[in-house]
Amino acid sequence: MTQIKSTRLEHDLLGDREVPGEALYGVHTLRALENFPISGIAISQYGGLVRALAEIKLAAVQTNAELGLIDRERTEAIAAACTEIIDGKHHEHFVVDVIQGGAGTSSNMNANEVVANRALEILGAGRGEYHRLHPNEHVNIGQSTNDVYPSAIKLALQFYIDELLSAMAYLREAFQLKAEEFAGVLKMGRTQLQDAVPMTLGQEFSTYAVMLEEDEARLAEARLLLLEINLGATAIGTGITAHPDYAAGVCRHLRDNTGYAFLTAGNLVEATQDCGAFVQVSGVLKRIAVKLSKTCNDLRLLSSGPRCGLGEIQLPPMQAGSSIMPGKVNPVIPEVVNQIAFEVIGNDLTVTMAAEAGQLQLNAFEPIIAFSLFKSIQHLAAGCKTLADRCVRGIVANHEQLRASVERSIGVVTALNPYIGYANATKIAREALETGTRVYDLVLAQGLLSKTDLDRILDPLALTVPENQPRSYLLTPEIPVSCEPSEGAVLPVSKAVQ
Amino acid sequence: MTQIKSTRLEHDLLGDREVPGEALYGVHTLRALENFPISGIAISQYGGLVRALAEIKLAAVQTNAELGLIDRERTEAIAAACTEIIDGKHHEHFVVDVIQGGAGTSSNMNANEVVANRALEILGAGRGEYHRLHPNEHVNIGQSTNDVYPSAIKLALQFYIDELLSAMAYLREAFQLKAEEFAGVLKMGRTQLQDAVPMTLGQEFSTYAVMLEEDEARLAEARLLLLEINLGATAIGTGITAHPDYAAGVCRHLRDNTGYAFLTAGNLVEATQDCGAFVQVSGVLKRIAVKLSKTCNDLRLLSSGPRCGLGEIQLPPMQAGSSIMPGKVNPVIPEVVNQIAFEVIGNDLTVTMAAEAGQLQLNAFEPIIAFSLFKSIQHLAAGCKTLADRCVRGIVANHEQLRASVERSIGVVTALNPYIGYANATKIAREALETGTRVYDLVLAQGLLSKTDLDRILDPLALTVPENQPRSYLLTPEIPVSCEPSEGAVLPVSKAVQ
Amino acid sequence: MTQIKSTRLEHDLLGDREVPGEALYGVHTLRALENFPISGIAISQYGGLVRALAEIKLAAVQTNAELGLIDRERTEAIAAACTEIIDGKHHEHFVVDVIQGGAGTSSNMNANEVVANRALEILGAGRGEYHRLHPNEHVNIGQSTNDVYPSAIKLALQFYIDELLSAMAYLREAFQLKAEEFAGVLKMGRTQLQDAVPMTLGQEFSTYAVMLEEDEARLAEARLLLLEINLGATAIGTGITAHPDYAAGVCRHLRDNTGYAFLTAGNLVEATQDCGAFVQVSGVLKRIAVKLSKTCNDLRLLSSGPRCGLGEIQLPPMQAGSSIMPGKVNPVIPEVVNQIAFEVIGNDLTVTMAAEAGQLQLNAFEPIIAFSLFKSIQHLAAGCKTLADRCVRGIVANHEQLRASVERSIGVVTALNPYIGYANATKIAREALETGTRVYDLVLAQGLLSKTDLDRILDPLALTVPENQPRSYLLTPEIPVSCEPSEGAVLPVSKAVQ
Amino acid sequence: MTQIKSTRLEHDLLGDREVPGEALYGVHTLRALENFPISGIAISQYGGLVRALAEIKLAAVQTNAELGLIDRERTEAIAAACTEIIDGKHHEHFVVDVIQGGAGTSSNMNANEVVANRALEILGAGRGEYHRLHPNEHVNIGQSTNDVYPSAIKLALQFYIDELLSAMAYLREAFQLKAEEFAGVLKMGRTQLQDAVPMTLGQEFSTYAVMLEEDEARLAEARLLLLEINLGATAIGTGITAHPDYAAGVCRHLRDNTGYAFLTAGNLVEATQDCGAFVQVSGVLKRIAVKLSKTCNDLRLLSSGPRCGLGEIQLPPMQAGSSIMPGKVNPVIPEVVNQIAFEVIGNDLTVTMAAEAGQLQLNAFEPIIAFSLFKSIQHLAAGCKTLADRCVRGIVANHEQLRASVERSIGVVTALNPYIGYANATKIAREALETGTRVYDLVLAQGLLSKTDLDRILDPLALTVPENQPRSYLLTPEIPVSCEPSEGAVLPVSKAVQ
Repeated sequence: MTQIKSTRLEHDLLGDREVPGEALYGVHTLRALENFPISGIAISQYGGLVRALAEIKLAAVQTNAELGLIDRERTEAIAAACTEIIDGKHHEHFVVDVIQGGAGTSSNMNANEVVANRALEILGAGRGEYHRLHPNEHVNIGQSTNDVYPSAIKLALQFYIDELLSAMAYLREAFQLKAEEFAGVLKMGRTQLQDAVPMTLGQEFSTYAVMLEEDEARLAEARLLLLEINLGATAIGTGITAHPDYAAGVCRHLRDNTGYAFLTAGNLVEATQDCGAFVQVSGVLKRIAVKLSKTCNDLRLLSSGPRCGLGEIQLPPMQAGSSIMPGKVNPVIPEVVNQIAFEVIGNDLTVTMAAEAGQLQLNAFEPIIAFSLFKSIQHLAAGCKTLADRCVRGIVANHEQLRASVERSIGVVTALNPYIGYANATKIAREALETGTRVYDLVLAQGLLSKTDLDRILDPLALTVPENQPRSYLLTPEIPVSCEPSEGAVLPVSKAVQ
Repeated sequence: MTQIKSTRLEHDLLGDREVPGEALYGVHTLRALENFPISGIAISQYGGLVRALAEIKLAAVQTNAELGLIDRERTEAIAAACTEIIDGKHHEHFVVDVIQGGAGTSSNMNANEVVANRALEILGAGRGEYHRLHPNEHVNIGQSTNDVYPSAIKLALQFYIDELLSAMAYLREAFQLKAEEFAGVLKMGRTQLQDAVPMTLGQEFSTYAVMLEEDEARLAEARLLLLEINLGATAIGTGITAHPDYAAGVCRHLRDNTGYAFLTAGNLVEATQDCGAFVQVSGVLKRIAVKLSKTCNDLRLLSSGPRCGLGEIQLPPMQAGSSIMPGKVNPVIPEVVNQIAFEVIGNDLTVTMAAEAGQLQLNAFEPIIAFSLFKSIQHLAAGCKTLADRCVRGIVANHEQLRASVERSIGVVTALNPYIGYANATKIAREALETGTRVYDLVLAQGLLSKTDLDRILDPLALTVPENQPRSYLLTPEIPVSCEPSEGAVLPVSKAVQ
Repeated sequence: MTQIKSTRLEHDLLGDREVPGEALYGVHTLRALENFPISGIAISQYGGLVRALAEIKLAAVQTNAELGLIDRERTEAIAAACTEIIDGKHHEHFVVDVIQGGAGTSSNMNANEVVANRALEILGAGRGEYHRLHPNEHVNIGQSTNDVYPSAIKLALQFYIDELLSAMAYLREAFQLKAEEFAGVLKMGRTQLQDAVPMTLGQEFSTYAVMLEEDEARLAEARLLLLEINLGATAIGTGITAHPDYAAGVCRHLRDNTGYAFLTAGNLVEATQDCGAFVQVSGVLKRIAVKLSKTCNDLRLLSSGPRCGLGEIQLPPMQAGSSIMPGKVNPVIPEVVNQIAFEVIGNDLTVTMAAEAGQLQLNAFEPIIAFSLFKSIQHLAAGCKTLADRCVRGIVANHEQLRASVERSIGVVTALNPYIGYANATKIAREALETGTRVYDLVLAQGLLSKTDLDRILDPLALTVPENQPRSYLLTPEIPVSCEPSEGAVLPVSKAVQ
Repeated sequence: MTQIKSTRLEHDLLGDREVPGEALYGVHTLRALENFPISGIAISQYGGLVRALAEIKLAAVQTNAELGLIDRERTEAIAAACTEIIDGKHHEHFVVDVIQGGAGTSSNMNANEVVANRALEILGAGRGEYHRLHPNEHVNIGQSTNDVYPSAIKLALQFYIDELLSAMAYLREAFQLKAEEFAGVLKMGRTQLQDAVPMTLGQEFSTYAVMLEEDEARLAEARLLLLEINLGATAIGTGITAHPDYAAGVCRHLRDNTGYAFLTAGNLVEATQDCGAFVQVSGVLKRIAVKLSKTCNDLRLLSSGPRCGLGEIQLPPMQAGSSIMPGKVNPVIPEVVNQIAFEVIGNDLTVTMAAEAGQLQLNAFEPIIAFSLFKSIQHLAAGCKTLADRCVRGIVANHEQLRASVERSIGVVTALNPYIGYANATKIAREALETGTRVYDLVLAQGLLSKTDLDRILDPLALTVPENQPRSYLLTPEIPVSCEPSEGAVLPVSKAVQ
């Protein structure tokens, strides 16, 4: 290998520039570094994107070699360089800012240059000796940023979505275990924050598991849209400069190399300008965020207290809650997940605005779309794992509080509707609220139903299962139903026409 | 039928109230009218929702009758009343505001009362004689707002989505026809608003058709989620007061009566609190809006002029464009569609916020979710139809302008990459820009390629089709390629290692 | 006046059209009606906008008359027509859809035509006899849609903001009255939904009043930006066709006629394209919505119950809460206000998108901006009034529940920090939680503080007022403080260096 | 100083933990590190926040010392530690994630611990020897996270807003210079992307300067809201444990130390839960983003080409635009600013959601609010500087293209309105468009105006200045005006009643 000098001279459209000798990137990357000093976050922070770029460069050179467009020596060097990057090496040379102009050109150029310079080293040549192996003329054959970059984003998203789906499943299982643990724990259900009718805490926790399961299904559907790529489209979808068999070949290699079932878009001109798949995935991430936030709102609400709240469950204490209030413990894990959700919803708006702003044959704003999606997915995955490990698994039920709440509730009166009618039941409910007397006692005292019937109808656990609902409304015969409209009939009120 | 008095007395939890005699609604609706003087828009403005409520009341009474929970006389009266509403009658009695508290209870109560009072008339009784047929005790058997209302929204959305899909297809066909008409019209493609490489105007218009086609597919998928209903859940999903066979029965009747393949959710507790399907559909509507807005941005841009713009196409003039500038014609139809898109994107945020704010066993904010979705769908449908009829169909191409733009463009130099290399091509491009000379002439003058090769390589129409891209880079033999790196080789530059 | 025929012929750029004879509008409006069948909501629904358009037409004709650009006869007819519209007449002729393309041209044309035709009638001429008085050549002198329309929006917003500020003040007073009523009612404050330290219910309600007061101040500031108008800018701000003294004159007349202190923008080119004031006002409306929604969330939370919630306050029951759960009462008024808030936040996004999409010398999307702002303001005003009248005024405190919560709380331990240290207090808190013993009893039992000191320090009402906080930490002398770090010192722990 | 061991044992509510010996932070921070592995971005990335926390700890200890609540030795040590942090030292010990639960408690704890441990070192004690100087009992006297954290955010925002305002002014000046440079360059103005009337390029660029100036004014106003702090509120605003004179003192010290005119909120309970100021500032940042994005949209549009676009200006080339299209140069700097704008608008939504989600006495979601605002401000500042230096300063006008566009335009016909009437002018415009003849020639040929008048009226540069508009419409006498309604009168058409 040639000696690495402190700088080397490179040339582009705008003239000559000294590039740091140790850099695997070149002049195009250098200019981008200077042009976009925005977030301070390099694309190397998103290893999935770097790997994805290298996967595409690899599939491209494999295809071009098959088509006879590049010789074996260069092919092998480029392939070796790509493989190193896929294996996690050289990522520190992917230095351009995640927020960049140029529709991703700087990311693609960065990849071309790193691959070229590493390949040159492999060939025994020096960095920057592009007459032997050129970033654009060899690494980029048959490619344009406009097909490489969105395809790389889609591959990177596949990597990240794998992680998110795994984290969601992990959280779902944690909820499911709790649902089973709490299957027999009676509590009052609430609608509009007002006491409604009995249910079990297990039913409540099962909903969180089911929500996640459905969201996983939606994400699994949406990611399929990310399998449609436009490699072969080159600049605007007409495939200019790409061999006519390139599109099929590069897609096949990418599929074989990565295991994701990529396919080439039917209309490459459309596919090159289209950000619909990103919008759709972002919309699903937003949905996940909405549901996760609602779940965390519930957890915070149910665990409110310890003395002056609902106090139905206790979250495991994770840290002291206050710098001033001794002994205070706060629901910090749900709170951090709420905030992730708010961030994801904001990111979705960024994606939406960027997608809408695309013009004519290209959307120039794919970098912020990619960055926003990556953040959303990674933070959601971190949030799911954290929520499972540091909150859900440690939740305990306050059995006493829950049982007491069912006993003192008025909502069970609902179960009497079929027997005494909505109007009568309303009167009982009002009386119970005003006097503090139990519904059970009031109904019995007023002779509306027999004790046997009441015990059967108001068995709270039975009330929580549809299968236990009345198949007919026939009551035990001993006491005539005395509600106004139906005179003594044992028919449910709904059947008695006067 | 009894004589209609100017008012009648009705009673509820809060006491007695005089209801207008001619009203088919009752005391619950009256209170809601007073409680929610917000938008001034009655739910009757959304006939699809009114019909949907009636469809559910009909399916419910059919089911309850089968289960022996209501007698034949009342059943037939209720069914007849529902059928009239489905047929478009009595909608003016659905008076509660679309923006309402109570999680839709007022809409459900409004429906119960109108059906009951109309059924009473059919029975020959007077309005308000609820001891004969009661809004809650008969019309609402086995139901709660919490299952009726979201299910009604889902059915109404099916009606409206039918219209939107039809309007989208109509617009897609208009674009497709233009794509065919413009198939042979050459133009310069643009990326990042800068001249890129040649394409046809037909290719450009085909993208608009494809985008719509894909969006139609996404909407068709998303609407399937709206087929999962929670009828039978009653208050919180435990099915309290509903016959255990009710859920299956009402779903079957609704399916049979409407033709939509509804199915009962697997976990009714989850389904009752879940707004995921609404968020998903709203996300897809947002996606449609984003794409439609991008399309309209393009149409406005391509038709900019008449003298000082891109001037590639002309939109049909629909109205005088200015109160002061005589003869000015503006792209008013795309502009109105852009605004619809902005509204839909805003509505999606409203839906998102409302969905996130759901608590515990119910989302109390379904009314604003429904209203937002209805508006989005209806306005998008109106926008698609208007855009097709009043804009797309009348678009004409400015052939002269388009041809001239290709001829004077520099972007065709891209096609030379495989033959003279990216670096050489960059030099040619810069020289062409600085001197105003054509790329063709420069390449010829510098002897980089023969005229025969140039004519073949730069044939603009050929450049727009992938099939016409170089299968190999072999040039005609007469002139040696003189680009720097490769010394006279006929190999493409990518193959020549020095 | 000439006989009104069933139709009359009018002419524009696109040719001849029959206009309904009874219509005061003309051919331009007719085409707009056909072009924009979007929302079905006519601009006449926003009477403030119609009045504002007439005010501008009036100020314009007054100015033009002064400048000698129009004769007295036409001036008087136009002024009379405008005055009638300002007085609420003829609004039914303002028929164009609120969602319209053309940057508001159709609204301006609609106004020009109605004013012209009504003025013609006043002159004794027939509708459509524009050779005598022309919508564009007389009513529109010195004007363009591009200055008339945004200025009219700004005036209409002033009208609507008056209403909103009044409604906010009304709600603020309702909260203030409750704050005074509840001034002595002790309760536990909460942070992160966990019990914190004591406060009064009056303090809690005072925050809602203060929030509104601050929001009123922000809105009052923001509306000032709406006083900067661009009348005189005509098409793009260069004032083409307008008399050089027109801008000053029309602004003065508008100011004098309406009482709002309008002023002409310093840079008319900038002002004509600028939507900053709308974005700012929308941002403030969003802020109001955020705060109002938070307030309603609190009200719903504090009133949760009746048996299984926080149960600290009761909202007045406004309607039966459930079609199935007898006796249930829901917080329907806060719920409707929450939904208004979500709508306003969505509208703000619509405004944002529309403002961002403006291009070059004009923002073509002002109609959706106006419509969104009008809706937000009107719904917020309705929400504030409804919340005051149907909820806040009737709120009652559950004194017993509140007192009990303070007594059983652990959070009072915070008050001991200065005397026994954060570390010791943490131990006490944990012990209190685990054993169910009161903090007071534990501290006393462990001899950490004397009863006299404890009674003084833990007086709950004293804890709620900053003035009652310890001026020094000197305790009564009888019992030495035994907390770990400081050995027996009466100094607060913070002062004792070992 | 005691020897630093590899770990040290610390204790909190949850038990004992080993803390790394070299860490200045303690057990609370350690737990937060483990609890919030979300974004990987430590709060040390926001040096302004770290400095702000130290400034508050400094002002607090100064105040507490004055009030006799802490001895001199500890005071000096704490003050010295704070000063070091303010000077930029020890920031690497501020390690908690920017996205954190607990309402900022972990950030405050992190600050307390770093200050305490550094102060201990200054006192010659070892890290973790909290019995000598305790993070909560000494550093945190009179404080709670709930007043420290939001106040620190407000101070940090002041630092960052200083930078943003400076960057905006810098960009404004760049636009202003261009406005002056282009003052005499005529061009066609456009409304709705259609040719309107003449203006100068200088006028166009002046609008960008004015927009920024107005946005600077709005930001300067909004930042005033951030001067209202709640130090002294402690936990919920009642000031529990804080000396009654503390609030005034700490505010005075903070003001004196930092130079920002902080003041204590009037109602501390309200101020402690209120996020209104953050929402307002975020709304103004969104406004800035909207305007900046519009400006960049314009720059990209005006510079579209080089051959097939508007081509009115050229942006300085900053990097090669394409990996495949040689010589292509793209507007990469405006593009990156557009993306920053989309991000800021998304961040505003995050702030909105987080603010709305606050409950009762505290908003638990301030961390994501702070993080979002910091990002928005920093990225906007970077964007403004980059746009000024790498784009605006280098813009050149394409004089030839601009002049030609005015000459071939039809829009100048507008200037004839006052003389020949809107209806006649419409006819001329249509004829010009259809025949390609110039307006000037058509008017002359039809004898509508004399050459002298035409030359005067249509002088394009005169048309761009309001002062040059017709003071009266008197024409030169030689040719009678022949427009339809007025028969030969020299009166403007608006004055002639038939």
